[in-house]
Amino acid sequence: MSQTEGGAAFEPRRASDVKAWDHEADVVVMGLGCAGACAAIGAAESGADVLAVERASGGGGTSANSGGQIYIGGGTRIQRACGFEDSPEEMFKYLMASCGPSPDPALVSVFSERSVEHFEWLAGQGVPFKESYFPGGYEPPLDDCLTFSGSEDVYPYAEIARPAPRGHSPRAIGSKGPILMRMLLAAVERARVRTLFDARGQRLIAESDGRIRGVVVRAGGSERCVRARRGVVLTAGGFSYNDEMLERYAPRLLKCSFRLGTEADDGSGILMGAAGGGALLRMEAGDISLPLYPPLELRRGVLVNQYGQRFINEDAYMGVLGEHSILHQEGRVFMLLDERNFRRPEVFECEVAAVGESVAEIEAELGIPSPGLQNTLSLYNTYAERGEDPLFHKRADYLTPLTRPPYGALDLRAESVGYALVTLGGLHIDPDGAVLGASGERVAGLFAAGRTTSGISKQGYSSGISLGDASFFGRRAGRAAAAGPDRAGGVDRPKAG
Amino acid sequence: MSQTEGGAAFEPRRASDVKAWDHEADVVVMGLGCAGACAAIGAAESGADVLAVERASGGGGTSANSGGQIYIGGGTRIQRACGFEDSPEEMFKYLMASCGPSPDPALVSVFSERSVEHFEWLAGQGVPFKESYFPGGYEPPLDDCLTFSGSEDVYPYAEIARPAPRGHSPRAIGSKGPILMRMLLAAVERARVRTLFDARGQRLIAESDGRIRGVVVRAGGSERCVRARRGVVLTAGGFSYNDEMLERYAPRLLKCSFRLGTEADDGSGILMGAAGGGALLRMEAGDISLPLYPPLELRRGVLVNQYGQRFINEDAYMGVLGEHSILHQEGRVFMLLDERNFRRPEVFECEVAAVGESVAEIEAELGIPSPGLQNTLSLYNTYAERGEDPLFHKRADYLTPLTRPPYGALDLRAESVGYALVTLGGLHIDPDGAVLGASGERVAGLFAAGRTTSGISKQGYSSGISLGDASFFGRRAGRAAAAGPDRAGGVDRPKAG
Repeated sequence: MSQTEGGAAFEPRRASDVKAWDHEADVVVMGLGCAGACAAIGAAESGADVLAVERASGGGGTSANSGGQIYIGGGTRIQRACGFEDSPEEMFKYLMASCGPSPDPALVSVFSERSVEHFEWLAGQGVPFKESYFPGGYEPPLDDCLTFSGSEDVYPYAEIARPAPRGHSPRAIGSKGPILMRMLLAAVERARVRTLFDARGQRLIAESDGRIRGVVVRAGGSERCVRARRGVVLTAGGFSYNDEMLERYAPRLLKCSFRLGTEADDGSGILMGAAGGGALLRMEAGDISLPLYPPLELRRGVLVNQYGQRFINEDAYMGVLGEHSILHQEGRVFMLLDERNFRRPEVFECEVAAVGESVAEIEAELGIPSPGLQNTLSLYNTYAERGEDPLFHKRADYLTPLTRPPYGALDLRAESVGYALVTLGGLHIDPDGAVLGASGERVAGLFAAGRTTSGISKQGYSSGISLGDASFFGRRAGRAAAAGPDRAGGVDRPKAG
Repeated sequence: MSQTEGGAAFEPRRASDVKAWDHEADVVVMGLGCAGACAAIGAAESGADVLAVERASGGGGTSANSGGQIYIGGGTRIQRACGFEDSPEEMFKYLMASCGPSPDPALVSVFSERSVEHFEWLAGQGVPFKESYFPGGYEPPLDDCLTFSGSEDVYPYAEIARPAPRGHSPRAIGSKGPILMRMLLAAVERARVRTLFDARGQRLIAESDGRIRGVVVRAGGSERCVRARRGVVLTAGGFSYNDEMLERYAPRLLKCSFRLGTEADDGSGILMGAAGGGALLRMEAGDISLPLYPPLELRRGVLVNQYGQRFINEDAYMGVLGEHSILHQEGRVFMLLDERNFRRPEVFECEVAAVGESVAEIEAELGIPSPGLQNTLSLYNTYAERGEDPLFHKRADYLTPLTRPPYGALDLRAESVGYALVTLGGLHIDPDGAVLGASGERVAGLFAAGRTTSGISKQGYSSGISLGDASFFGRRAGRAAAAGPDRAGGVDRPKAG
């Protein structure tokens, strides 16, 4: 949706200018992905009459196209069954350290403390989880549940919080997003949430004092006014598919050519909310993934920048690799391997940028001033022989000296491979999912969750964080909206769920 | 001003709630630094009755405490007199390349095209400029005018645009900010601008349709309502002095312990504007300076990060050094020198982190895994002997091999020295200085300039950019405000000036 097409595209309509209400509900949820489904269920559980509006012909959105993994912990029954100790305190410490710079302690704290309860709620909605652990990567290839989905067990996080796997994947072979959303959408139906499909949000409807009263949507070629008696919840995704917004707010992310999401991630929910008085937070942030592993053997490789320098522990989480490469190394990165350790990434195709009988040949082929790359590898090998990585603290299991020719370098430059992007900036919310204005006050009647908001992650990421905070704060936003303008404080003492 | 003291601190007051107007003017300018003075003069030249409100007891603000340098070019008479060729096209190319990521071409283009005219306007206000060039640094120590104040003559910018010095300093011995502001404030007085000192802006006053009608200020212990018949111009500085805002919007900048500005840079102008409907842009950006030079001899040193790796051409502009150190190297940086080239920075004090008869000793003292630092210096020296820096393209004049013991390393870590910060994020404006909302529409009656806005620089910086865009867009904002709600299009055809 181009912002230049019409300057005031998202300005709220005045409630007094609404001639007739075409639809009406206590709570109106805009967008039926994971955040929207949980908001709708949460609101319905609190006794509200809920209408969910979705621009596609059915629910699911980006969540249905995702891996389906949910970041949950603090001691779930799956964690316990698989022999992992965890607590809300350890989860809080890990998230505060890894989701920065400066994540919001209020959001992270409620997310950590109520995570176990939230897991049981999700299971109660019918989302299936197997009591099993998969040790071989961020996402289980079969129907296992639990994985280390972030940086919990690598430097420096393993020293900050007791490592525990917190990625919980729904039980399904292959991609788990579809089963997650199928179950949540069935729960939406059971909760008697009404739906309006093929309807696009255009702008909010506001009173003259700024209170949000509804939404203007476009459906079937005509405009309809939807009244929200208690509140509107914006759960319309991020802005990964809007190049103009990326250029304006987060131009560094344009280097990522593989945009996770759907074309509905055009930022319209964010802009509607901002035009309605919501503050935008950390708009520059993005989850940038370079899914180099599996195979895990590639962690034995040596990542270098365009100058032939190492810059990261190669066993870092794919989101950390992507962030460092794109934000700090201009997206100009190669992985050096020897004959014994040569592999190719399973998740994406990449070219071999150089092959040679010696590191000097690789160096020359990559155009790295000699002997920069040779020095780098020689330093790495010297310490790796002793099982040490004094620079970046890669784990000893992956510290194999690269000494057997031929050598090869994978081309991991942003112009050659698709770094995967999910935008993380969005509306500023409080722990109830209420949208906050620039001076920290609530925008009355407006709530949001998921990638329409700036949530748990302010840049640092672990797999499952997005579905984690989408489901968690979606549900809370739905409940807070249902509580109505004067009862938002009651969210922490729910009657249902 | 704490945001937690009162959630709705900056929410606009409804015009209908104003019982009486204590002051009234066509144009109300909030803050009397460089942007505010130029806005006031610009509005008065356009025939408006202007009231300038300032929280201090006199005008000047951060601009009076600055170096006074103004980024101007495109072929000023000073540039021509000193034998430098320049054009708006070359200035535009340089700024678009150096002020990114993704500077706003609309702002940069009008700023470049009308720069010569703007220079004559400033001179016409009485700001004195000498027709002389100082070749030895970013700022002239005596009363010279012209310097290379950014990265114009270093890699890669020297290849992108024809290098020309564009830093124009007012004629004065020592710091030039006071003379700049003395002259502009005298011009404000001549223009019959009325002033209200010791008065703090509290919040905007808005109609129910969002149109800005005035400002609530606090003065002499009581609240006063100021009516703006045509427009309000926010020129109240940035948020370098508000740690809470930095933590929320730009936490990486908290590493900078030397905050340029005054305590008035508390972000209140930005938050007032945002609460009034303005969009915030690039809030993460900041000019981060490490003023390592003079003496220029220090450019012969070798900057390394905590891993002993080089990361930048050492002759880069101080804002580029600061940006790379803080944003990309975690603020953990040292400069390696030998006996022949050892100097200390003149502008700030710094400790020597290590001294030794060999590079190996320095390496050990800094805790860099051996032989990382030795490799780095050996590579540097090898190429420097041939006058080459194939990694970072430092200019040949500064490429001296470091070979004569004893060696020393300056401690340039952010915890040891004060990196200087000016925040660059703020309200989104168009080329007339009109404040834009989230969907790109103008907020009727609201204008802004200077560090209250996101201006020419979106992160990349050159000295003089802030006073450059403050004066340039301040003047334009004043004129646009004076033109009134229905005549904003007439700004490019001023009658006066």
